[in-house]
Amino acid sequence: MIEAAAARMAGHIRRTPLLHAPLLDRAVGRRIFIKAECLQVTGSFKARGGWSAVSALSPDARAKGVIAYSSGNHAQGVAYAAATHGAPCVILMPSDAPQVKIANTRAYGAEVVLYDRATEDRDAIGARLSADRGLTLIRPYDDPQVIAGQATVGLELAEQAAAVGVTHAPVFTCCGGGGLSSGIALALEARAPGLQVRTAEPAGFDDMARSLASGQRERNAATTGSICDAILTPSPGELTFPILQRLAGPGAVVTDDQALHAMALAFTHLRIVLEPGGAAALAAALFGEDLPDTVIAVATGGNVDPDTFATALERFA
Amino acid sequence: MIEAAAARMAGHIRRTPLLHAPLLDRAVGRRIFIKAECLQVTGSFKARGGWSAVSALSPDARAKGVIAYSSGNHAQGVAYAAATHGAPCVILMPSDAPQVKIANTRAYGAEVVLYDRATEDRDAIGARLSADRGLTLIRPYDDPQVIAGQATVGLELAEQAAAVGVTHAPVFTCCGGGGLSSGIALALEARAPGLQVRTAEPAGFDDMARSLASGQRERNAATTGSICDAILTPSPGELTFPILQRLAGPGAVVTDDQALHAMALAFTHLRIVLEPGGAAALAAALFGEDLPDTVIAVATGGNVDPDTFATALERFA
Repeated sequence: MIEAAAARMAGHIRRTPLLHAPLLDRAVGRRIFIKAECLQVTGSFKARGGWSAVSALSPDARAKGVIAYSSGNHAQGVAYAAATHGAPCVILMPSDAPQVKIANTRAYGAEVVLYDRATEDRDAIGARLSADRGLTLIRPYDDPQVIAGQATVGLELAEQAAAVGVTHAPVFTCCGGGGLSSGIALALEARAPGLQVRTAEPAGFDDMARSLASGQRERNAATTGSICDAILTPSPGELTFPILQRLAGPGAVVTDDQALHAMALAFTHLRIVLEPGGAAALAAALFGEDLPDTVIAVATGGNVDPDTFATALERFA
Repeated sequence: MIEAAAARMAGHIRRTPLLHAPLLDRAVGRRIFIKAECLQVTGSFKARGGWSAVSALSPDARAKGVIAYSSGNHAQGVAYAAATHGAPCVILMPSDAPQVKIANTRAYGAEVVLYDRATEDRDAIGARLSADRGLTLIRPYDDPQVIAGQATVGLELAEQAAAVGVTHAPVFTCCGGGGLSSGIALALEARAPGLQVRTAEPAGFDDMARSLASGQRERNAATTGSICDAILTPSPGELTFPILQRLAGPGAVVTDDQALHAMALAFTHLRIVLEPGGAAALAAALFGEDLPDTVIAVATGGNVDPDTFATALERFA
């Protein structure tokens, strides 16, 4: 499924570079390779899963259209894929999502429906809209085609790491519901078994780290309260958790300040723009303790409001 | 020479991606492809020329060391190349260069000597230091090996443009002394003759545009006064000008505000960090008039002070 998803993406989804900065390595004291998914066509890896799911639909289902719920990056990924395939597209977004994400999703031609993250149940709203209009719901992570799409990051990473001589290293991956992390873990299991996924989450929203430790799907106490808006999911996915339980190392947890600091270092040394949730894995690679000499981080997204980015620069650059 | 330079770079100089953003295209009304040299290993294309020149030295000359003068990006390129080759390295930098460039050049292990851009003659200082210590002077643009190194951008671009079906388009290139522009022009002449270089310079420092129009090497009236510090050279190079006279289209001129605006759009739509001088070509591609449906811009560098970047975001993002 992963190879088939990669084949369907050819010419539409970018092979993102594996970056590396000598001065960053010197400052941190270890080699860090960064898979820059912020350079993906919609600004995050979510374009892969969206493309994989939409391109796998039957012509009939595609003509009726798709619906997705998302804090923004999955929205843009699905909207881009739907627009390119000529499929109608409804996106359910929390009303507190960054304005740039709402605006971009609309610019891709999607119909955006806003809901209140604290008081409304997005799953219920999505199910009702799907039933009313015959739309296919494209889940952000608990969907085999979405996981297969995100897994193509792992196919590329296996090749790119081998090209720079890296065969054994932890691969920190920003983690919400676990679609990207589980997909990469599956791809690496087959292609680069010495590379092991380690999830990275914001403090207070470390449901995956706690679930991996306890062996069962744990929930976060809150649904908002970190600047890492892209990865604030309530609990690990039903499909993704067993994959990560089998394949991932211990989950890492980073503070909001560490995510901002990682954004500033990525600005200075890598010249890429990261959003807070997209910088969590780099933060884990930079500030984690007891790490090996070489680590890999997947920088998952760069759709960030200018004010938040300016704050990161002002405080840490 | 260009192919030989490319061969010597393997494993040390990054093949940078050709980026493309659907929403940027929609906003501007044309397709813009961006060669992201800000993602090059030292944050600008200058690593290519530095690597090409240092790697072409005899073992004896390399052991004595190299010297370069630069507003910063050439400095970092040469310093990186020298450090990797184990060659001593002295860098002459203007005292008003961005702090980040001075700091990074020192971090690469180079000895930095500062001079006053308005009152001192960098060529004379460089010649004296070269003679005293037996250092080889590596000029920023008027050096065949440096031009050959920068030209590898053109080799990659020819392949990458063909891969997205672009065979005829202007290629806007940020232009100081013309090393990059002339190198790319030579590579494209051989590999993609339908792609034509057009230089991009800041208003008031458009010596190349005026020289291309008049047919002789013109000089700028001032040496400072634009935020595009990386490309404020007094006049076209002796080697580079005849190449561009033969191969380039008319030179484009952009304002400082247009460069800042291009930086903000690159932040929002491409998630890359550009410095003002590195955004001049993108500005020409965005804001130029009477352009064809498809244009290419070389985004040449991303070594920018946080305050300047925050200003671009505050005013234009």
